[in-house]
Amino acid sequence: MTNRDGKKISLGAFLHPSGHHVAAWRHPDAQPDAGVNLANYTRLARLAESASFDLIFFADQAALPSENYDYISRTTRATLLEPLTLLSALAAVTERIGLVATVSTSFNEPYNLARYFASLDHISGGRAGWNLVTSGTRLEGENFSNPPGYSQHDERYARAREYAEVVQKLWDSWEVDAILGDKASGRFVDRSKVHRIDHSGQYYSVDGPLSVARSPQGRPVLIQAGSSASGRELAALTAEAVFTAQRTLAEAQEFYGDVKEKARSYGRDEDDIKILPGIFPVIGRTESEAREKFQVLQDLVHPVVGLNYIQSHLGGIDLSGYPLDGPLPDIAPETEANRSRRVLLLDLARKRNLTIRELYLEIAGARGHWQLVGTPNEIADALESYFHERGADGFNIMPPSPHGLDDFIELVVPELRRRGLFREAYEGRTLRDHLGLKTPPNRIAAAATAA
Amino acid sequence: MTNRDGKKISLGAFLHPSGHHVAAWRHPDAQPDAGVNLANYTRLARLAESASFDLIFFADQAALPSENYDYISRTTRATLLEPLTLLSALAAVTERIGLVATVSTSFNEPYNLARYFASLDHISGGRAGWNLVTSGTRLEGENFSNPPGYSQHDERYARAREYAEVVQKLWDSWEVDAILGDKASGRFVDRSKVHRIDHSGQYYSVDGPLSVARSPQGRPVLIQAGSSASGRELAALTAEAVFTAQRTLAEAQEFYGDVKEKARSYGRDEDDIKILPGIFPVIGRTESEAREKFQVLQDLVHPVVGLNYIQSHLGGIDLSGYPLDGPLPDIAPETEANRSRRVLLLDLARKRNLTIRELYLEIAGARGHWQLVGTPNEIADALESYFHERGADGFNIMPPSPHGLDDFIELVVPELRRRGLFREAYEGRTLRDHLGLKTPPNRIAAAATAA
Repeated sequence: MTNRDGKKISLGAFLHPSGHHVAAWRHPDAQPDAGVNLANYTRLARLAESASFDLIFFADQAALPSENYDYISRTTRATLLEPLTLLSALAAVTERIGLVATVSTSFNEPYNLARYFASLDHISGGRAGWNLVTSGTRLEGENFSNPPGYSQHDERYARAREYAEVVQKLWDSWEVDAILGDKASGRFVDRSKVHRIDHSGQYYSVDGPLSVARSPQGRPVLIQAGSSASGRELAALTAEAVFTAQRTLAEAQEFYGDVKEKARSYGRDEDDIKILPGIFPVIGRTESEAREKFQVLQDLVHPVVGLNYIQSHLGGIDLSGYPLDGPLPDIAPETEANRSRRVLLLDLARKRNLTIRELYLEIAGARGHWQLVGTPNEIADALESYFHERGADGFNIMPPSPHGLDDFIELVVPELRRRGLFREAYEGRTLRDHLGLKTPPNRIAAAATAA
Repeated sequence: MTNRDGKKISLGAFLHPSGHHVAAWRHPDAQPDAGVNLANYTRLARLAESASFDLIFFADQAALPSENYDYISRTTRATLLEPLTLLSALAAVTERIGLVATVSTSFNEPYNLARYFASLDHISGGRAGWNLVTSGTRLEGENFSNPPGYSQHDERYARAREYAEVVQKLWDSWEVDAILGDKASGRFVDRSKVHRIDHSGQYYSVDGPLSVARSPQGRPVLIQAGSSASGRELAALTAEAVFTAQRTLAEAQEFYGDVKEKARSYGRDEDDIKILPGIFPVIGRTESEAREKFQVLQDLVHPVVGLNYIQSHLGGIDLSGYPLDGPLPDIAPETEANRSRRVLLLDLARKRNLTIRELYLEIAGARGHWQLVGTPNEIADALESYFHERGADGFNIMPPSPHGLDDFIELVVPELRRRGLFREAYEGRTLRDHLGLKTPPNRIAAAATAA
């Protein structure tokens, strides 16, 4: 195979304290305080930077992930650091790697969010990225005085669309050369290059300008996660990278083609939006070593945790009365929220005739993400095929276990480089540089000039 | 004089990029990019830590400070980093010093704020403090879709009171020993020690628990700024330290006595709330050196900047038609918002027969804070008398110029130590330790146990 136009892949490290596998915290190598230990995150961030990864990435939650306290008592996901504060700290102990924080549009004012990311972009010298999500769980809403329109999927996305527009306008409210800093004349700011945005829309009314001058990237990189129809439209319109869960090449190709086509329909170039599926790789020097590593994790999955995953993805049904070693009963009613995951689970269970226990072991470990258990060559083959067959522009690596990122960097990255698929060292300084993204034109300045 | 019960003073460093004097950025030593340069802030934070200061402190603004663009073009206050992100970065490059960020209750959801500070407290190993303010300017409101009740002073404070209660409940929603991390049994969390808060009040409805486990300080330190009647009540009820502007010993004593008495009326001990006036010290080895240093800054105050200060404090009147070297006209109508500052300015101008220019030079440099120009001995005398005469428990030092903090640490701190007023080195690890504050009892856990 040859590289696509000599392009290389992007690599993100999607970090979770001890690893993404639901039982990773019980792994012998796991530190009990990994979730709140800055030294742990610093080690992982510097490790990813040492391999010239494009970015590190953190998810977020504004509530406990469940009200099933049997489950809560058995998961590290009950408590996580807030990603903006964590990434700001990591900005101070890294130099080149991109820093992507997930923040929901549902519970934060756009002016605050624009400031947080502009500030992080200044602090990091141009390495900030915002992963836009629209939260939708009842538990989150109940922590935020149940905001209006929150529970409606379509309204959440309509709000998110306007929200992203406001944030981008605020980032554009200072032109790149607005700071004069002229001590002699006493002029610090060129007032002709600072603009109100005077946004008055359906959901937000924001005058601006931002109280933070234009940051090194001009605009922090806008990433989007979420693969629903509304999510794809929003991504195609606004996102510069998309984090997505795609478990087969065919699915990945469909998603990739659809989002790129939608982006073109909005007048964008297909290179303006990068598609980064998540991958959960369990790597061994041999296949049997990989399978053994995986089995160590799988043996630590408690039934309460495994069942919780299936139950919540079927819309909160209770499977506790069914034998773990019997078949999955078809008792979950289809709803808009569970439709795609319900079909996925039921199909999987039927096609392979899985018991409830086999089903949760099949998917709960990697929580539905693309799971690869194999040798460095096999994993490199899979990434290469997704890349060459237009299923991905890069990948968000989800290390399964405390040393999963070490394994990927030690074993897979050299193979990707041997194939000419991944950079040997950083070529640029900013996250935009790493991802090969242009700085979008300043719409506010252009409007002001035209006026 | 003897020390009060052997107690020592607390010292904060209230940092502003090149210094607090309105013309500090024009000082020959100022770096043009000081406001966005992490290395500048890192130097200042480490400098304060090297002298075992209790804390560093950042103000905040969620809008430009004025819509007078003549002024905006001449001030570095038009653009500042957001303090939560900045302090999180500084947490990673310091070890002992407290980290206090100003965040308004007007535009942030309490669940988010509780997470930010709990996270910063984890990242920093117990050094986080929240300076609670209730924003009230029109320019800020217009960046946040003009939230309901925002423009009413009393409602803002009523909201702030409930807000602080929600935040503290969320910090208490995890007990100190809730994390088991028991790999063998698979129990990560002791579910009996994680509590919903089920807050349902006049303004907020928040179920909890927080999605961040209890942080090292239990509760990040709650600081309050604002000296209005409502501000004093709120501080007496909730704050553990108060940052305030007091320009004479008599004023400081009145404020100190009143807030401590109000705190006692809420059943608190007077040592549970520390009073920290700001001080703007210009220090020379001799009086004439101090005056020369001050004059360098004063000569750089542009009339537009000086006038803006007077005009905005009189409620936005326009003085541009009056001669700078003539008297201050009595043209500003008294309003609730400008009452105390208006009286202050008019009294000052009349008593000393000052021209407009003399008036703005008198107060605009330090923006109304307690300004001391003198030798290390004179400054130590002033701090000692405020401390011994019950006007202050410590001070928030506002360095006037790029090396103002260096001057204070090199010249004044040794004198304070010689007098037994300030610690030689850190004795504790957390901001609570430094300030001598107890951890408040966990109200949520107590309620859950009682139930």
